[in-house]
Amino acid sequence: ADIVVLPGDGIGPEVTAAAVEVLRAVGRRYGHQFTLNEHLIGGAAIDASGEPLPAATLSACQRADAVLLGAVGGPKWSDPKAKVRPEQGLLALRKGLGLYANLRPVQPHAATLGASPIKPHLLAGVDMIVVRELTGGIYFGQKQRSETSASDLCEYSVEEIERVVRRACQLARGRRQHVVSVDKANVLETSRLWREVATRIARDEFPDITLEHQLVDSMAMHLIAKPRAFDVIVTENMFGDILTDEASMLAGSLGLLPSASLGEGKVGLYEPIHGSAPDIAGRGIANPCGTILSAAMLLRHSLGLNAEAECIEQAVAAVLEAGVLTADLAPAGQAVGTRAVTDAVLAQLE
Amino acid sequence: ADIVVLPGDGIGPEVTAAAVEVLRAVGRRYGHQFTLNEHLIGGAAIDASGEPLPAATLSACQRADAVLLGAVGGPKWSDPKAKVRPEQGLLALRKGLGLYANLRPVQPHAATLGASPIKPHLLAGVDMIVVRELTGGIYFGQKQRSETSASDLCEYSVEEIERVVRRACQLARGRRQHVVSVDKANVLETSRLWREVATRIARDEFPDITLEHQLVDSMAMHLIAKPRAFDVIVTENMFGDILTDEASMLAGSLGLLPSASLGEGKVGLYEPIHGSAPDIAGRGIANPCGTILSAAMLLRHSLGLNAEAECIEQAVAAVLEAGVLTADLAPAGQAVGTRAVTDAVLAQLE
Ligand SMILES: CC(C)[C@H](C(=O)O)[C@@H](O)C(=O)O
Ligand SMILES: CC(C)[C@H](C(=O)O)[C@@H](O)C(=O)O
Repeated sequence: ADIVVLPGDGIGPEVTAAAVEVLRAVGRRYGHQFTLNEHLIGGAAIDASGEPLPAATLSACQRADAVLLGAVGGPKWSDPKAKVRPEQGLLALRKGLGLYANLRPVQPHAATLGASPIKPHLLAGVDMIVVRELTGGIYFGQKQRSETSASDLCEYSVEEIERVVRRACQLARGRRQHVVSVDKANVLETSRLWREVATRIARDEFPDITLEHQLVDSMAMHLIAKPRAFDVIVTENMFGDILTDEASMLAGSLGLLPSASLGEGKVGLYEPIHGSAPDIAGRGIANPCGTILSAAMLLRHSLGLNAEAECIEQAVAAVLEAGVLTADLAPAGQAVGTRAVTDAVLAQLE
Repeated sequence: ADIVVLPGDGIGPEVTAAAVEVLRAVGRRYGHQFTLNEHLIGGAAIDASGEPLPAATLSACQRADAVLLGAVGGPKWSDPKAKVRPEQGLLALRKGLGLYANLRPVQPHAATLGASPIKPHLLAGVDMIVVRELTGGIYFGQKQRSETSASDLCEYSVEEIERVVRRACQLARGRRQHVVSVDKANVLETSRLWREVATRIARDEFPDITLEHQLVDSMAMHLIAKPRAFDVIVTENMFGDILTDEASMLAGSLGLLPSASLGEGKVGLYEPIHGSAPDIAGRGIANPCGTILSAAMLLRHSLGLNAEAECIEQAVAAVLEAGVLTADLAPAGQAVGTRAVTDAVLAQLE
């Protein structure tokens, strides 16, 4: 299998390096040949070529079976007047590969409840997956700027909503048959369309699935007040961005959470939900688990290697259980670095 | 002083009735004459007149010293194809009165920490106020709808950003001199303008204030992970809507939180941040504290009656401390109703 690796910026190179080691170890153990090729994206690509998504990177990704990405962005490229930004590379890649469904599972581990700001009794049994629409909405609508004002257009087509709601309902079939769709239908026209389409798809195509609607403001509350109530959550691009960062607190750290971005084609993009964390980049202290678990999602969703995916997930769980934790999770004075966590995961895989 | 009361829908009439009793009691105690007149808004106004904000209501509000509102909306008026919605009345009122700054203070009480999903040690000393821009952004931009798609325009002018950031910085002067501005400047053009303007206003006009920027996704995390880090938070309309509902969990219940909406004119609008809660309407179990505390903000911000405002705030604190709690806050089996909480507050005011 042909896997493109996009380290990107900040801690991206450190965490993807860890995940690549894990992929190689799993390949050895199960006798698979993974071809891993690195390409440039984000700020690193801007520095090298002036563009956040060089054509060579996009075409390598289009030909690959799967893409593993670290993170993009950082203060070096964040001047508000900059013409070109690292984030544009990531957005163009998601769009270019047609990856409209971003799956973000949240399953707190017993070992990391201490790091969560949420009371532990609320977290037992939490097991949700957010399906974030990834190639539409205000991220991709027309942007305008004048001397005195600025605007962003939020747009959704019926088809864009249908396909992501379908994906969420399909996922729910393999889970607890429960989907919560999040919108702001009491104010936004796009949300009213979203609600209509979601209602119709669930009713006509998924009579076995229970669909509920929540307003995004309410959801920001319920997500932490009664997290066990959720199974599959489906929402538009920006709401999904906000709610999944919030939901990461259920798991104790953003650094733990993986994601898979899928479309109709075979290629999927796998990335941790954390950012490039420039403040800790290069110090060897980043949590590699989000990226390692993204590699597990890659094996499952793009390569159909379920046993191998589970093997990685169990390895990470065992390492957390053993208290081998980076600074985002460890009690004061007990943190280890990226290298130690990666080695502990590799040891589990032997 | 001339106060317009807009009960609205759902639990709105119950909670405003409680707050009106409290206002009258404070008036008696301090020898003030408050003239309180009720008008229609929201679904109740649609039912009576076909319009969510009748002209008589708007003009009464324009002439008043202050407006106290319950909540609007409910399933009765929520058909996605409805031509007219209760929420439009509230949005038109905010816009019609020029109330661009919505102040939402969050200060957990020791007595209600048990009801919060957040670990208590994170909540000690939390004291923040969110300044939500209230008359711009995607709530008010052009909306379009066709057979196959829908759109909402998010727009901000330099002036709209300047005035709300100024208000936030002024507030911070009376507090801990610290403002966090929240945007999504790595993706949105409106956010980049927001960040530029906020930076300039703070630098040129408020050299005594420390301004920081946070991305909205990150903020959704930090708000619950390290709530003590925040003093004044300023953000655009929809981000403020989402983040304040989330922040309400710090206080234990949405039902506790008041808000003040202010503009350049003398009239302010005061409303709890909760909605119309149609599921519990008419049952006498709604928490009146958010509206009672909104009445306190009304006395402070519109009438300059600071001692009277504090008197109400202390009364509510004492009632919470005494464990007189509605179902949203009480341990199982120990909840009392709206009437009992209101009576307990009134008793404190005698
Ligand atoms: C880097 C940024 C463009 C991105 C997003 O908002 O989609 C990130 O926050 C994420 O959630 O993957
Ligand atoms: C009712 C609705 C329009 C309103 C809003 O989103 O502004 C409410 O959620 C609020 O926060 O006051």
